[in-house]
Amino acid sequence: MASEGREKPEVGHDQAPAVSTKVDSIIKVLRVLAFLLTLDATLVMALNKQTKTFTVATIGTVPLRATLSAKFQHTPAFVFFVVANANAALHNLLMLAVAFAGSKLSLKGFAPLVVPVLDLVNVAIVSGGASAAVFMGQLGRNGNSHARWNKICDKFESYCNRGGAAMISSLVGVLLMIIICAVSIVRIRNHYAGYNKLPLNSSVLP
Amino acid sequence: MASEGREKPEVGHDQAPAVSTKVDSIIKVLRVLAFLLTLDATLVMALNKQTKTFTVATIGTVPLRATLSAKFQHTPAFVFFVVANANAALHNLLMLAVAFAGSKLSLKGFAPLVVPVLDLVNVAIVSGGASAAVFMGQLGRNGNSHARWNKICDKFESYCNRGGAAMISSLVGVLLMIIICAVSIVRIRNHYAGYNKLPLNSSVLP
Repeated sequence: MASEGREKPEVGHDQAPAVSTKVDSIIKVLRVLAFLLTLDATLVMALNKQTKTFTVATIGTVPLRATLSAKFQHTPAFVFFVVANANAALHNLLMLAVAFAGSKLSLKGFAPLVVPVLDLVNVAIVSGGASAAVFMGQLGRNGNSHARWNKICDKFESYCNRGGAAMISSLVGVLLMIIICAVSIVRIRNHYAGYNKLPLNSSVLP
Repeated sequence: MASEGREKPEVGHDQAPAVSTKVDSIIKVLRVLAFLLTLDATLVMALNKQTKTFTVATIGTVPLRATLSAKFQHTPAFVFFVVANANAALHNLLMLAVAFAGSKLSLKGFAPLVVPVLDLVNVAIVSGGASAAVFMGQLGRNGNSHARWNKICDKFESYCNRGGAAMISSLVGVLLMIIICAVSIVRIRNHYAGYNKLPLNSSVLP
């Protein structure tokens, strides 16, 4: 197959189509993992709710109780976290669809550029969501004595633990998306440079 | 020049060197702006401090006063904001140095790949820092009644305003860095594809 390509350079790759297919597969696996992690982060955070009954006072021997709920909707950073991760999960699903349908669709060189740029935008959004949630979670866990904001994780422990799990999912998801985007950038160059046997020194300096 | 290049394709660009130089200049200008914005965000946040004296009680006619300071170091999200923006400012400065020294250094095709990947990582970090700071600032401004965290911006208004200005600088900086990285990605493809007159349909699908 490789020698066939060498005779007809218009058809496609002439170098290492096996390597290209292998990288393709690795990217698809990473993409599936990133999709699952961001979906997991979305669902765990969106379904995170803890209701607890506290004894606020005792009148004689009758305890006076109050029921409080901790929900993700109460914290704007967690709402952004859910939106950002849901968006990233949808993005990863769509990009998987593009990758699998790619050979059938005539994309005319549009996808190799649009996919990493969309990845980049999604990395920025999910990174923002995860980071905001992490610092809000840290505030919930430790409080801030300077601002007189008391910790709440001593009262809503399982709420905080589930939130923390969602944040870890999201952070690993961001890391995978950064790797996917970086590999995409390297592949664009390697594909065109390798295909045409360009010397490696180049004047493309962004 | 353009026709000369056509005869000797090994030398360099054969297509639109003027366009390439123009895009180069635009990227450099955007890079300088991104550097200034992230530097501004770093300095404004790092120097942000407000000291205020409150009357906490009155004994007879003698007021009892307490002096409180609001500093960025008191909030972990703001510390991360300063580190992230300082890092991005340094990155942009180094990338400017690479861009200006690029023609003299023999970078052997390394820079065109490393620069957008480093840009990507920095976009993720600054986006995280800016987003965490924005949500912490929103908490300071509005408080959170569910967690019983009171707003503090009514007491430290100029501290909050300066912090907000730093956040706007940082957010515009991230936006510019996303544009720079996206343009870099498109340029890698256009450079190699244009140089070798490749047909636009390709099978590089990340």
